[in-house]
Amino acid sequence: MTTTTTSVAARSDQRARFHDVRAFTERLAQPLSAEDQTVQTMPDVSPTKWHRAHTTWFFETFVLSPHAEGYEVVDPAYGYLFNSYYEGVGPRHARPRRGHLTRPGVAEIAAYRRAVDEAMDAFMDGDVARDVAALVELGLNHEQQHQELLLMDIKHVLATNPLRPAYAPDDQATPRPAAPDDDWIGHPGGVVRTGHGGDAFHYDNEGPRHDELLAPFALRSTLVTAGDWLEFIEDGGYRQPALWMSDGWAAVQADEWEAPGYWTLGSDGWSIHTLCGPRAVDPAEPVVHASWYEADAFARWAGCRLPTEAEWEAVATSRGDDALGVDSWALHPRAGGEQWCGEVWQWTASAYTPYPGFQPAAGAVGEYNGKFMVNQQVLRGGACVTPSGHTRPTYRNFFYPASRWAFSGLRLAVDA
Amino acid sequence: MTTTTTSVAARSDQRARFHDVRAFTERLAQPLSAEDQTVQTMPDVSPTKWHRAHTTWFFETFVLSPHAEGYEVVDPAYGYLFNSYYEGVGPRHARPRRGHLTRPGVAEIAAYRRAVDEAMDAFMDGDVARDVAALVELGLNHEQQHQELLLMDIKHVLATNPLRPAYAPDDQATPRPAAPDDDWIGHPGGVVRTGHGGDAFHYDNEGPRHDELLAPFALRSTLVTAGDWLEFIEDGGYRQPALWMSDGWAAVQADEWEAPGYWTLGSDGWSIHTLCGPRAVDPAEPVVHASWYEADAFARWAGCRLPTEAEWEAVATSRGDDALGVDSWALHPRAGGEQWCGEVWQWTASAYTPYPGFQPAAGAVGEYNGKFMVNQQVLRGGACVTPSGHTRPTYRNFFYPASRWAFSGLRLAVDA
Amino acid sequence: MTTTTTSVAARSDQRARFHDVRAFTERLAQPLSAEDQTVQTMPDVSPTKWHRAHTTWFFETFVLSPHAEGYEVVDPAYGYLFNSYYEGVGPRHARPRRGHLTRPGVAEIAAYRRAVDEAMDAFMDGDVARDVAALVELGLNHEQQHQELLLMDIKHVLATNPLRPAYAPDDQATPRPAAPDDDWIGHPGGVVRTGHGGDAFHYDNEGPRHDELLAPFALRSTLVTAGDWLEFIEDGGYRQPALWMSDGWAAVQADEWEAPGYWTLGSDGWSIHTLCGPRAVDPAEPVVHASWYEADAFARWAGCRLPTEAEWEAVATSRGDDALGVDSWALHPRAGGEQWCGEVWQWTASAYTPYPGFQPAAGAVGEYNGKFMVNQQVLRGGACVTPSGHTRPTYRNFFYPASRWAFSGLRLAVDA
Amino acid sequence: MTTTTTSVAARSDQRARFHDVRAFTERLAQPLSAEDQTVQTMPDVSPTKWHRAHTTWFFETFVLSPHAEGYEVVDPAYGYLFNSYYEGVGPRHARPRRGHLTRPGVAEIAAYRRAVDEAMDAFMDGDVARDVAALVELGLNHEQQHQELLLMDIKHVLATNPLRPAYAPDDQATPRPAAPDDDWIGHPGGVVRTGHGGDAFHYDNEGPRHDELLAPFALRSTLVTAGDWLEFIEDGGYRQPALWMSDGWAAVQADEWEAPGYWTLGSDGWSIHTLCGPRAVDPAEPVVHASWYEADAFARWAGCRLPTEAEWEAVATSRGDDALGVDSWALHPRAGGEQWCGEVWQWTASAYTPYPGFQPAAGAVGEYNGKFMVNQQVLRGGACVTPSGHTRPTYRNFFYPASRWAFSGLRLAVDA
Repeated sequence: MTTTTTSVAARSDQRARFHDVRAFTERLAQPLSAEDQTVQTMPDVSPTKWHRAHTTWFFETFVLSPHAEGYEVVDPAYGYLFNSYYEGVGPRHARPRRGHLTRPGVAEIAAYRRAVDEAMDAFMDGDVARDVAALVELGLNHEQQHQELLLMDIKHVLATNPLRPAYAPDDQATPRPAAPDDDWIGHPGGVVRTGHGGDAFHYDNEGPRHDELLAPFALRSTLVTAGDWLEFIEDGGYRQPALWMSDGWAAVQADEWEAPGYWTLGSDGWSIHTLCGPRAVDPAEPVVHASWYEADAFARWAGCRLPTEAEWEAVATSRGDDALGVDSWALHPRAGGEQWCGEVWQWTASAYTPYPGFQPAAGAVGEYNGKFMVNQQVLRGGACVTPSGHTRPTYRNFFYPASRWAFSGLRLAVDA
Repeated sequence: MTTTTTSVAARSDQRARFHDVRAFTERLAQPLSAEDQTVQTMPDVSPTKWHRAHTTWFFETFVLSPHAEGYEVVDPAYGYLFNSYYEGVGPRHARPRRGHLTRPGVAEIAAYRRAVDEAMDAFMDGDVARDVAALVELGLNHEQQHQELLLMDIKHVLATNPLRPAYAPDDQATPRPAAPDDDWIGHPGGVVRTGHGGDAFHYDNEGPRHDELLAPFALRSTLVTAGDWLEFIEDGGYRQPALWMSDGWAAVQADEWEAPGYWTLGSDGWSIHTLCGPRAVDPAEPVVHASWYEADAFARWAGCRLPTEAEWEAVATSRGDDALGVDSWALHPRAGGEQWCGEVWQWTASAYTPYPGFQPAAGAVGEYNGKFMVNQQVLRGGACVTPSGHTRPTYRNFFYPASRWAFSGLRLAVDA
Repeated sequence: MTTTTTSVAARSDQRARFHDVRAFTERLAQPLSAEDQTVQTMPDVSPTKWHRAHTTWFFETFVLSPHAEGYEVVDPAYGYLFNSYYEGVGPRHARPRRGHLTRPGVAEIAAYRRAVDEAMDAFMDGDVARDVAALVELGLNHEQQHQELLLMDIKHVLATNPLRPAYAPDDQATPRPAAPDDDWIGHPGGVVRTGHGGDAFHYDNEGPRHDELLAPFALRSTLVTAGDWLEFIEDGGYRQPALWMSDGWAAVQADEWEAPGYWTLGSDGWSIHTLCGPRAVDPAEPVVHASWYEADAFARWAGCRLPTEAEWEAVATSRGDDALGVDSWALHPRAGGEQWCGEVWQWTASAYTPYPGFQPAAGAVGEYNGKFMVNQQVLRGGACVTPSGHTRPTYRNFFYPASRWAFSGLRLAVDA
Repeated sequence: MTTTTTSVAARSDQRARFHDVRAFTERLAQPLSAEDQTVQTMPDVSPTKWHRAHTTWFFETFVLSPHAEGYEVVDPAYGYLFNSYYEGVGPRHARPRRGHLTRPGVAEIAAYRRAVDEAMDAFMDGDVARDVAALVELGLNHEQQHQELLLMDIKHVLATNPLRPAYAPDDQATPRPAAPDDDWIGHPGGVVRTGHGGDAFHYDNEGPRHDELLAPFALRSTLVTAGDWLEFIEDGGYRQPALWMSDGWAAVQADEWEAPGYWTLGSDGWSIHTLCGPRAVDPAEPVVHASWYEADAFARWAGCRLPTEAEWEAVATSRGDDALGVDSWALHPRAGGEQWCGEVWQWTASAYTPYPGFQPAAGAVGEYNGKFMVNQQVLRGGACVTPSGHTRPTYRNFFYPASRWAFSGLRLAVDA
């Protein structure tokens, strides 16, 4: 028997997951004062309280308002204030001025979250059509993305402060086992199936699943480390234009880059600002907060190149679950292991473009991914701050090539 | 008998005044949430909590550290964070990024204020040299200036918010008595004594007292009103370049000015955002938040001119205390009366330059006024938000000619 | 018998070609006054006289100085003034200030060209090593590229002038035969060989020749016309954010785009500024001066998409020479025919990235193409202003997606 | 007998003067190529050919079109292209884009000048009303101002070129006799008559003649020299914020000022770019190309101040004709003498504001001076490049305090 609504068991699972995801956002905000949650230190950054409200607005706008009978929005003004970029839903507050909004404050936003959570609870109590359940699932994944953004953004806010405050004490993450072999993993090339083809949740941009033709190549079994990067710096990597893309070299000069983001040179050598405060750069840990321009220049300096996203996916999907490491949340990337998905996002050589046959979803949620498919580069994997269970080998993240505030690093490739 | 320290009575007076002024700042901040106190909506604006800290830093830096034996600063980092513009005291946090600082938060800043207040109390308990007492007095006047800035700044912060929140409920100020005659007050010209010559506190820029030679002129007994300004708008005042200074016309076009600051045209006509929230423009009240460019263009449109500061002072000092109105604090200017000092700052035709023989004070406090004596225009009078007792007819306020966030209006002049 | 130098016949051919190419540059500059040749109306534009000097500097720097015994540079300062972007050759005059240089003037630059031409003649008289002959060939192709840039740039200069002067009188180009069928050309997909694999001159970025895997698709046999674009405008294409990439919509709003570059709406409808002066938009002719953002939005509006560069190449290489039309130089694109290579550059869906196995040439000439392989989109075909014989179906042109001063249009694609 | 037209003798004088002034402009342009005359290297700079056309447009617009019967303008488009800032006359080409205009070229502009000169000749042949003769006189003075601007502007154009070309060979100016006493000239203060009160030509801003009240003071008999300035540099003048106005210090840091404009530090010490090419800084010659900010800081460093414009005028008008030196045209300022009017414009402490009772002329020529009376500082005297006979002690020149491309220096003042 076919049904257009989800089963009781599925509803119950989704409700549990809804509570978990929503609670985790609040847990992430918990160490932050009202002041911390309010400011915006560059246009890319959004205030913590904005993230808390925007993720709530998503459920209100795409689930409750159209599908929950009799639902009335908590505050009509919130639609204007907390729409991020959905042109189809109406006008919105300009992104670079999100940090100008002091009202609603954190207490009102907490109340907004509770009101929407209750309405969602009531809504999920009844029959939920499959397509609406899919919107709820999208909303949960959306909120997980914002959990990572919240940490990226508050890291920038706190690092901007000369007092260099920590977001949280050191989480004393258990170091991973060292990679058994710092080695190359070869691949014979040929036609490979790429993209997500299953029923489990995935973003529209991960499909359609399709064939790609690869030449033989090899990927490094481990990430580029901070120690590798120190060699690059010492060898004058930031002073040799021949290593850089033209636009990248312009960025080096305009922004006076001499090291990855959050690195500072003191009398004791390089330190890095982390969510746990400043600490000395650990040569063994993966390099993080490198822009694509830097990753590309580093790879050239090393006599290698960045992998394409199809190459990355072909190898990653062939490694065991341990190597993937999708469930290892932490505030700062750690040394050791193959680290495909659990430490830093890995820049690829691929520009972010649609897969063959890609069609965005209908309606305003179709703006989720498709309209960003130019000028950005794909990153694969997932970072220590990516929520557990959120990433997978087919996941396509993307940022502008000059961006450095994401937890971005790299893995080397060579032609075989 | 000559003494270099202040008397017990004077010390007691100053301590009382110290407590009053310091408490008033806290009272002004009281209606504001931690979020409200943190943001900066344009480079001219400083966060409320910054004002609270900076005024405290002033006493710590110029009184306690050099003069209170054994005093240790509350936090060495505050010197960097809360120095406004005193080059002589060391480097400082960049002004346009004051709104990036979430730490110290409002609670820590309240504690900072209490710590410095206690240290000041102890310090003022003992003998205080006359020159140090003068620094304390400067610090109190400095804090009063920041009380006005705090209100100017939070008005901008709140008005920027699409929710248009009020700072405080309407204060239901008793309207002033209507001016008995909306008339011209003539002056025969000749040599007039200008500037402050007394022993009472005044800023260095108010002196030396000196002679100015004036031609015969007349000043209007009342301020230009919002009603007058509506006529200017309706007559196309913002569309006729011949009325404007060249730089002013460029500002009109670049910033698309069509009315004074905080005015909005809705279906019901013009409204103005006040500290008590939006309200319809009242034609009887003085126009406020006009730039110098607008004031100058309005005067030309009216067939008049702005008064020079010497003209303004010559007439103002001849009016009675009631006309001056220096003690009529309110959140928004009110209709009625001569309004020399109690409603809006009045733009003059005078560029802000030193009086003949002007010498700034020695040391870093000498940076207080002198280094701003170019590119700005003098305003005279005082506004409804100027703390009671803070202004006087010799007081020289100054802003750039494009500034509109001060409580600035105008009074007309003509040659006789 | 293997030889490392070129044959007498090959040398003679190259000399003839050298003279032809060099003379064509001078012919292009001939209608332009000294004033016309001097200015720069935006950072992308270079002055005509700079193009004349820079192409000369290329031969001096990469052929004569390293390979012609005893050669002395005409003026040591020219190395600084006329280096475009070769970091490996030394510092250079900033690109946005090329229009600030009044000296050397056009007469001195003509003399510079003659001096280098004579030295090249003498040099090519002797034995020329194969690799040096290859550099000469590169220099000639480089100069041909600048011939097209010269026309793009002077078009911008002249169109900026309110007098709207023409570069040259209408060239009365014979209209092409109408396309027999305005139709779709299907392709079954599968593995296709892509890129240049032959011995004839081609740029490094056209190789290595390699396999690409395509899904079935179809391309339009004709270009999108100005008439098609008028429909897009009338249908509100420039006002519907859903049609646009996010960055493209930002460009529409920031630059107030309402039509392609050089289009102006007058009382008689749309006109376009051409190198022959302004004229009414001809609905039959290909649309030109569209940015990638506009091309992409148009394709979406039309229910189609842009072709990938591999798709474009697969079909173009299958058409006859007549359809390619590589030798049909003119000052403005013309209606009719399949127009693969002779009318407008055609934006593709492909970001400009290296082909698998790509290696830039050694030395400073290796900066020719490789360092631009991020942030730009590939265009294929060739334009009416592309010198005869310069383009071919494997040719990869590239511009930023917001650029509109190139002769850029589009051809539609659909999935089969 | 009163007449409303000028006498035959006066007409003849004016025609002779017209020919002289117009011819001098052409003589100034003569050493410059078409390329030199076309470019604009910063927004303040206008191209030489624009100056030649704009001064011609002035006569066409304000004299011929309204007053010469049957006159038809040479080209209706010129009204748009060559209007500088007269809002009353209609729209105009944007100032920062004057350097984008290649047409009309120098030959067409020469023809434009000839056509207007001929029409003016014919016009001045007949009866000329007194008020029209006054407009002609204004036009001649206007053209003389542009003769100086032409030299200021071309100096910037040529100095921007790395080849550092000279405008003309060294003019071997006879050095002035050394000042007999490098001394202070005292003034007792009191009421002084200020401004122009005579019938001879003067600008509207020089009047009305009126009384000013001065305190006793003294002015230096000589200008500040380059040698004095070297001491200021060596003493760290550009590194001590306490010497600077706040806005000036911001300019020092933003523009990285370390010396006056056109000064360059080489291995042989400081050189200066002059209209005769680069030369070593001569310590004896007056410092030139100092901004007001620098002049003000220098004066403070020297324990002095800048004179007010009334002080300057009171002393200058008391010196003999030799001391004034109004007729000593040269391409670079020279050492020696009192140099009130013939070497460098001298910054004053006075903001540029209207004199008491000032009324601009009626009509568009009323925009000549009045609309600039804010944000600028007065300079007095006249420079070596000011046309002979153009300046006088009441002449009020004005520039923004950050400007350095004028021939601006300073003379010190002290309170007596």
